[in-house]
Amino acid sequence: MNTHRSVNSATFVMNLNSIRSPHDIKGLDLPQLRSLANDLRQLLLEKLSRHGGHIGPNLGMVEATLALHYVFDSPTDKIVFDVSHQSYVHKMLTGRMAAFLDPKQYDLVSGYTNPQESPHDFFTIGHTSTSISLATGLAVARDMRADHENIIAVIGDGALSGGLAFEGLDYAATLKTNFIVVVNDNDMSIAENHGGLYDNLRLLRQTNGTAPTNYFKALGFDYRFVADGNDLEQLIAAFSAVKDINHPVVVHIATEKGHGYLPAVENKEAFHYGPPFELLTGKPIIGEPSPAEEKDYGDVTTDILLGEMAVNPGLVAITAATPGAIGFTPEKRRQAGHHYIDVGIAEQEAVSLASGIAKGGGTPWIGIVSSFMQRAYDQLSQDVAINSTPVVLSIFHASFYGMTDVTHLGWFDIPLITSIPGFVYLAPTCRLEYESMLLWALHQREYPVAIKVPGGKMVDGEQTYPTDYSDINTYNVTQNGSDVAIIGAGTFYGLALKVAHILEEKGIMPTIINPRFLSGVDAPLLQSLEANHRLVVTLEDGVLQGGFGQRIAAFYGTSLMEVRSYGMDQEWADRYDYQLLGDLYRLNPKLIVEDILTLLCK
Amino acid sequence: MNTHRSVNSATFVMNLNSIRSPHDIKGLDLPQLRSLANDLRQLLLEKLSRHGGHIGPNLGMVEATLALHYVFDSPTDKIVFDVSHQSYVHKMLTGRMAAFLDPKQYDLVSGYTNPQESPHDFFTIGHTSTSISLATGLAVARDMRADHENIIAVIGDGALSGGLAFEGLDYAATLKTNFIVVVNDNDMSIAENHGGLYDNLRLLRQTNGTAPTNYFKALGFDYRFVADGNDLEQLIAAFSAVKDINHPVVVHIATEKGHGYLPAVENKEAFHYGPPFELLTGKPIIGEPSPAEEKDYGDVTTDILLGEMAVNPGLVAITAATPGAIGFTPEKRRQAGHHYIDVGIAEQEAVSLASGIAKGGGTPWIGIVSSFMQRAYDQLSQDVAINSTPVVLSIFHASFYGMTDVTHLGWFDIPLITSIPGFVYLAPTCRLEYESMLLWALHQREYPVAIKVPGGKMVDGEQTYPTDYSDINTYNVTQNGSDVAIIGAGTFYGLALKVAHILEEKGIMPTIINPRFLSGVDAPLLQSLEANHRLVVTLEDGVLQGGFGQRIAAFYGTSLMEVRSYGMDQEWADRYDYQLLGDLYRLNPKLIVEDILTLLCK
Repeated sequence: MNTHRSVNSATFVMNLNSIRSPHDIKGLDLPQLRSLANDLRQLLLEKLSRHGGHIGPNLGMVEATLALHYVFDSPTDKIVFDVSHQSYVHKMLTGRMAAFLDPKQYDLVSGYTNPQESPHDFFTIGHTSTSISLATGLAVARDMRADHENIIAVIGDGALSGGLAFEGLDYAATLKTNFIVVVNDNDMSIAENHGGLYDNLRLLRQTNGTAPTNYFKALGFDYRFVADGNDLEQLIAAFSAVKDINHPVVVHIATEKGHGYLPAVENKEAFHYGPPFELLTGKPIIGEPSPAEEKDYGDVTTDILLGEMAVNPGLVAITAATPGAIGFTPEKRRQAGHHYIDVGIAEQEAVSLASGIAKGGGTPWIGIVSSFMQRAYDQLSQDVAINSTPVVLSIFHASFYGMTDVTHLGWFDIPLITSIPGFVYLAPTCRLEYESMLLWALHQREYPVAIKVPGGKMVDGEQTYPTDYSDINTYNVTQNGSDVAIIGAGTFYGLALKVAHILEEKGIMPTIINPRFLSGVDAPLLQSLEANHRLVVTLEDGVLQGGFGQRIAAFYGTSLMEVRSYGMDQEWADRYDYQLLGDLYRLNPKLIVEDILTLLCK
Repeated sequence: MNTHRSVNSATFVMNLNSIRSPHDIKGLDLPQLRSLANDLRQLLLEKLSRHGGHIGPNLGMVEATLALHYVFDSPTDKIVFDVSHQSYVHKMLTGRMAAFLDPKQYDLVSGYTNPQESPHDFFTIGHTSTSISLATGLAVARDMRADHENIIAVIGDGALSGGLAFEGLDYAATLKTNFIVVVNDNDMSIAENHGGLYDNLRLLRQTNGTAPTNYFKALGFDYRFVADGNDLEQLIAAFSAVKDINHPVVVHIATEKGHGYLPAVENKEAFHYGPPFELLTGKPIIGEPSPAEEKDYGDVTTDILLGEMAVNPGLVAITAATPGAIGFTPEKRRQAGHHYIDVGIAEQEAVSLASGIAKGGGTPWIGIVSSFMQRAYDQLSQDVAINSTPVVLSIFHASFYGMTDVTHLGWFDIPLITSIPGFVYLAPTCRLEYESMLLWALHQREYPVAIKVPGGKMVDGEQTYPTDYSDINTYNVTQNGSDVAIIGAGTFYGLALKVAHILEEKGIMPTIINPRFLSGVDAPLLQSLEANHRLVVTLEDGVLQGGFGQRIAAFYGTSLMEVRSYGMDQEWADRYDYQLLGDLYRLNPKLIVEDILTLLCK
């Protein structure tokens, strides 16, 4: 372990490991700061190329972060990073350099701000567009205390398309005290930006901030423009000018996403977030032989959609700024043409737009990541479900085997969707079933339908199954047995098969059920089980509270049938290990069989 | 029944009952239209004064609605009203005049647009800020069909503060086809407006729309201003000019809330929505002797908050534009001073702001109506719960005995709040318990706490109970019995007492439990019940799916204890009758006792 080293000896001004707080950079002059910026960028590239992470956003923010910490006095002055995926340099400068210098310590810090790591981090953040609002809270608390520290929200241009960012700006503009919003404008979201606002940002960049039409001024903000947001001198001048300002101000800085690393500058979307890569070429380093060739659920989804678009002129595929996560590569976006709409980071608009399209006779499909779906709960309920519009959603990463950061857990989908009357929520057990559910959903006009897209590797199911879902809430019994019935929903149907296999070896032939529908109960089937079963086991790839298993347990509330449910506990897990947490939740065939045998022998 | 009458014989131009569709007004000249506007306003006032409803919003929109239907060709041209509480004149002109002419038919139409009533209504709407987004969907569907009808969203200035309205505008501005947004600017929300945007709207009104700083232009819209939005000639000219326009345009019309009725103009907040009133004086007509004197949960809430503000300099009470619904009268707002914040119709900002205040050391309280709480689900989960900030929410109308329009049901709070790990959700059984829960929540710093504010009349509890809630998830056993235990949560604790009373008359002494906590299970207590109980009955004032009772049923999944839960079924009830629907859900002591006796005698 070599933590005491210079990254770039030619320009090295200080031992990086000696930077324990922002205080340690206050005495530097401009050339020293520039040299430090180079070193920090090199260090970033070393870690990112070995470890993966948010590449472009952090490379673009090296100078701005350095300038912020040079000018302001964190943590007395409080900086709130939006999404906080661009906070790596902030972490380097606030006592966490070792997590970038030492590969063994890479994982000691999360990819987002985290108050448990440092007093310089105020919130655990991971969703977009929240920074201004959270910062307004810090500002109000400061004013109630009659203190005077600077409150600074740092937000990217992409995140400005989220409604909460607007709500935050609209309220913040009414503050009569210090409030600083740094808009980090790199003219990109994860992919390209979408929205009328971006024409205005472009105009402001083109006019050096002087255009009279100005979104921020229209909301009541004072405004400053920094033409080169990767130039330390300009940044320091701008931040110094607004330090201790007595009213709300926007500092609009034009930065370059991926700055200082050509492959990231040339391919901004691919380098927004990525796996380890070859530093020399930028090529991704892939662990397994050729899984790049292997299709995932996003690929099969977009294959189906493109096929349907050829025959359904009213089909519209909608994303809220995460095309990559749902299979819409730049090439597939081109193929889809006007059948594809990216509304920007605006999940609410995505859902209400879809309801309007359905009402207008079209066929709307939304691809959305599970953790972000909850940003549009009211629209799913009011604009879609109450109106019974046939909106189709594929909910990606809705799984234990998805993203593991606490801010991106995909487990809460079942309580959310199934708490909305009228929504049909389908859980496919494998690729083929997913495809048939998606096709059915796109061809019907009766229900809003959501489909829980399995996490992890695609499952190639072997058995046949019904491909029509019009008979709502009819479960599929795939094996008739006795004593115990195992209902394995979606991804966890495979777990049900494994449990059944072990039980069969022990002479117990369980009934196996693929429920298909998470949003309702197959009452006749469940009643019929009472004849020759004593126990129903439910397996669901989601949090138990408010979920599928509890609905089954409630159904049998006054019967003799026993019900044991498996899923995730109601807690905030963070960067968990599937194996360890899965065992804790007893999501393991052997442990489940143990439980079943104990219950049957009671 | 006299449906064939003139309302104002001096100016009468046509038999109002003869207006069966907008087609019937197309041939009128301007003086005739003006006369018709007067008649429609008189008719509005007659119904509103007898029936109650949204007064100011409809009075202000008489001329604009008439002009819209005069210029455009509904339902080919499609008008989407935001919230749609201002759609009464639209209903008059689209085949529903009888529901305004004939008191016996008053309730044949809802207070909002409703596709089941008319092909001129496209969506069932009731929440704010959705119209532009829904209309973008109609526009996209039109474009996919290669049709050319006009798509028109009508939105008030207040609703523009909701993030979804921004998201809708931002996306709509990118359309290359016809899209018309009518901004009905009366310089009011329900109460006064809040947000930097409103300074810009004021500037635009003051400059006759010519100010270079223009929110709508900043988002990429073409823009027109109508100085007198209650003048038919100006309105018809403006709408005619944008009819069939080939790009997105905002028509900003300055109207007067309550126009044409002095009491409503002079007291805009009180006349936003109200009960029947004396037409001559504007004084509310109250059915019962003096319940105006009687305090409600909003009053006791604000009494407590004002008391706490005197001793807690960091206490901040937050509303999202519904001060009246949560007890903050104009006088109490003045008393609260800087301890009171209205963020505008911006529930997301309200919640994230609160989290920031808590993180900054303050004590944030949010008062919110149950049906609107779901608009901030992601913020409750991410910004509050993951960050464990001690935010306190009072959730009003979270009850079967609340608002009965399908868009305003308050039943879905239990699944929503209790699906979020870390939230403490308390259900008080009476006024005194509510007060002690609110005080406890405001004085602790460990948990985000929500309190389910009972609906209906305030309950004055008689018995004593513990006033500390630090021992999370401990239920309160108020009577020890055997065989059956009745868990009566919140409002429904009173129902539990009634059930118990009948059972006792029949010689069965039930255990009675006030669970206090909806967000967790008192495992030791529930286990102890197994010794001498065979049945647990749960009563909750909320939808059953994902709720409290299902959690109890799941807890007993593998025990011999039977569980029967009572609450609302998972469905969209609309303008229901408490008595009828309550009996259907068996929320009636006699019916519940019947069920209990059947189960105990099995």
